[in-house]
Amino acid sequence: MKESGKISNAVIRRLPRYRRALKELMKKDVERISSNELSALIGYTASQIRQDLNNFGGFGQQGYGYNVQGLYTQIGMIMGLDKDYKMVIVGSGNLGQAIANYATYYRAGFVVVGMFDVNPKLIGISINGIEVQDYEVLGEFLKENKVDIGIICTTKSSAQNVADKLCQGNVKGIWNFAPMDIEVSEDVALENVHLSDSLNALAYYISHPMQ
Amino acid sequence: MKESGKISNAVIRRLPRYRRALKELMKKDVERISSNELSALIGYTASQIRQDLNNFGGFGQQGYGYNVQGLYTQIGMIMGLDKDYKMVIVGSGNLGQAIANYATYYRAGFVVVGMFDVNPKLIGISINGIEVQDYEVLGEFLKENKVDIGIICTTKSSAQNVADKLCQGNVKGIWNFAPMDIEVSEDVALENVHLSDSLNALAYYISHPMQ
Repeated sequence: MKESGKISNAVIRRLPRYRRALKELMKKDVERISSNELSALIGYTASQIRQDLNNFGGFGQQGYGYNVQGLYTQIGMIMGLDKDYKMVIVGSGNLGQAIANYATYYRAGFVVVGMFDVNPKLIGISINGIEVQDYEVLGEFLKENKVDIGIICTTKSSAQNVADKLCQGNVKGIWNFAPMDIEVSEDVALENVHLSDSLNALAYYISHPMQ
Repeated sequence: MKESGKISNAVIRRLPRYRRALKELMKKDVERISSNELSALIGYTASQIRQDLNNFGGFGQQGYGYNVQGLYTQIGMIMGLDKDYKMVIVGSGNLGQAIANYATYYRAGFVVVGMFDVNPKLIGISINGIEVQDYEVLGEFLKENKVDIGIICTTKSSAQNVADKLCQGNVKGIWNFAPMDIEVSEDVALENVHLSDSLNALAYYISHPMQ
């Protein structure tokens, strides 16, 4: 594997898609796949695929293809999916609860260890066995518990304050669902999720049916 | 504007980001911006930005920059955001309700006209003034009402069946939140939302802090 510092963001963004395709192939008991076959499945060009996977030293053999299971496992390791991540969710309304359910369902390695809200109606209820706590105690919770990822499911107006609090509490990454780009210190990883981007793309394709 | 058929998917994907940046600039009363300044804000290269916007005939003038408000409006029109879209949500649990709230908050042009579920506990409740109906009547509803977008917030196991029903009901696009790639007929636009992709990217950046 090359030094991680040399892998471009664009490649990182494409890795989950490779991994999903490989998982589907494993379900179908496919053991080997060529870059051309992967291309037909994923939609990237075969040349792009070879170039992407070469970033990691290249797992394929000329005329032989990629070992599906091996590539799946290696991509998972590169992505850090062989590790566990403790997560807190701030904002425990419908979206926070949906994300809690999703994370629990998605993968054992992403563990929700705390949920928080300011709404007295939500404080005290239990979501997948995690009791929603008062947002007031978040700072204390982060001092006492090592938390890797803070998930922001609040309104737009609270999101930056929550992000600041999470950064003070030494989370390593923030997954932000509030519909705005928040800012964090350089040592904290940040993913701003913009649900509207895919809705907008959908509007485009509906408006341009010849595309 | 060039013919819509010539605009690549990659450009379409970047347009929402331009639009968000331009909106922030409008809030700060910025009237004109150069491709270099946009580059600093968005992170794409200035050359990429000029190339992207040239797809639409080019709104900038050499040495003068782009008119922020004009570009924002034109990108919105290109993306079809000057039109209205009627939407139904299938699956009215936490995620469906969160998406309903989001759509209502996000933009007046995306209107939720129906919500559906199979769960008797959800059927009959009201979300933002829309009563959740029995999934059994979805087909009938789609016959009687012109619906543009079907939003799937069900479990993985139901998603493809729901997609088939929505396609039979002549929706023009599907926004799929179930964690799997569904398939639709060629004349239906499809956006599979993979929340896990951004969570995976976050895991990568946390695991490679030197990146």
